[in-house]
Amino acid sequence: MPERKYVVDTSLFVNPHARKDFGKDPTAAVRGFIRKLNGLDIEVYMPPSIFNELRNFVQPKAIGELELAIRKRAPNTYGIYLPAAVLYDFIEDVRIRINKGLRLAEDFAKDNRPDNDEKLRRLRDKYRDAMRTGIIDSKEDFELVLLAKELEATMVSSDEGVIKFADQIGCAWLSADKFHAVMKKLKG
Amino acid sequence: MPERKYVVDTSLFVNPHARKDFGKDPTAAVRGFIRKLNGLDIEVYMPPSIFNELRNFVQPKAIGELELAIRKRAPNTYGIYLPAAVLYDFIEDVRIRINKGLRLAEDFAKDNRPDNDEKLRRLRDKYRDAMRTGIIDSKEDFELVLLAKELEATMVSSDEGVIKFADQIGCAWLSADKFHAVMKKLKG
Repeated sequence: MPERKYVVDTSLFVNPHARKDFGKDPTAAVRGFIRKLNGLDIEVYMPPSIFNELRNFVQPKAIGELELAIRKRAPNTYGIYLPAAVLYDFIEDVRIRINKGLRLAEDFAKDNRPDNDEKLRRLRDKYRDAMRTGIIDSKEDFELVLLAKELEATMVSSDEGVIKFADQIGCAWLSADKFHAVMKKLKG
Repeated sequence: MPERKYVVDTSLFVNPHARKDFGKDPTAAVRGFIRKLNGLDIEVYMPPSIFNELRNFVQPKAIGELELAIRKRAPNTYGIYLPAAVLYDFIEDVRIRINKGLRLAEDFAKDNRPDNDEKLRRLRDKYRDAMRTGIIDSKEDFELVLLAKELEATMVSSDEGVIKFADQIGCAWLSADKFHAVMKKLKG
């Protein structure tokens, strides 16, 4: 059997739909994942930035166990080259979102009704949706995809923006909610 | 004398400080530039997208004359590769700006004073400043720098975001307000 490499995102343990077969909360999911991994002939990687993000959701003891079960490694950001077209598309996407953000801000600036708490809640929801959904929006997400590309590994995530970027640069990916079934199948 | 190539931005003709030695308005500046170019042993390029932007500021007759004096050419966006670190930095810059934009929108959403016109003017100014100043924010700007890089030409612009990006990818540039003096010197 060929060596199989996977680069996993926090969403595998944090997203309720993705982790449901591994455990009922992030800490239980990490433990369930480590058990499943035991004896499997695969290599699982996480960029250190993504691993550190996971500390916000998982108990320190389980994090320590995960650190022994997987490999932490950052992508070689200075050694990898991407087609200029990728940045071109990103700049255009950001430009459109910035315009949407301004339209939203204008709508809320014009609304002079007194209930500010309700307005701020609605503004934050709509702004997040307009600016962040479906786009790669953090260094951590970028490192995730880039590491998978560099290692010729399969990226495991349920983040829409991350998956879209993986497709742009030709990186293999698997929806996080399918990883439990893949591990089961690999066990044979 | 070695062949010299320049890729020029609209700011050379549109920015009052940059164009002052060429002409009193964009149309006069384009005409003044064409006169200066006459007999000079240099090649001046513009990406078609930038050339089209200039149509918004310059009379059609002068645009037609410029089209004969310079070369229009797009960069090979699919053939040029950039270090992943460039996109990494861009993603991080955008993330910080998106957060600033939300803080701004929140401030204006909470302000329930009745003068909406004044508020919208202030919001647009501050938002543009937070989101667009000092960052490459359009496909046109991206093409400008990329073409100069591809041709190993000097990019001529007075746009802060464009110059910053040129430095990131190691592209030679000249401040637009210096180009008149450079042309004069080349004439000898």
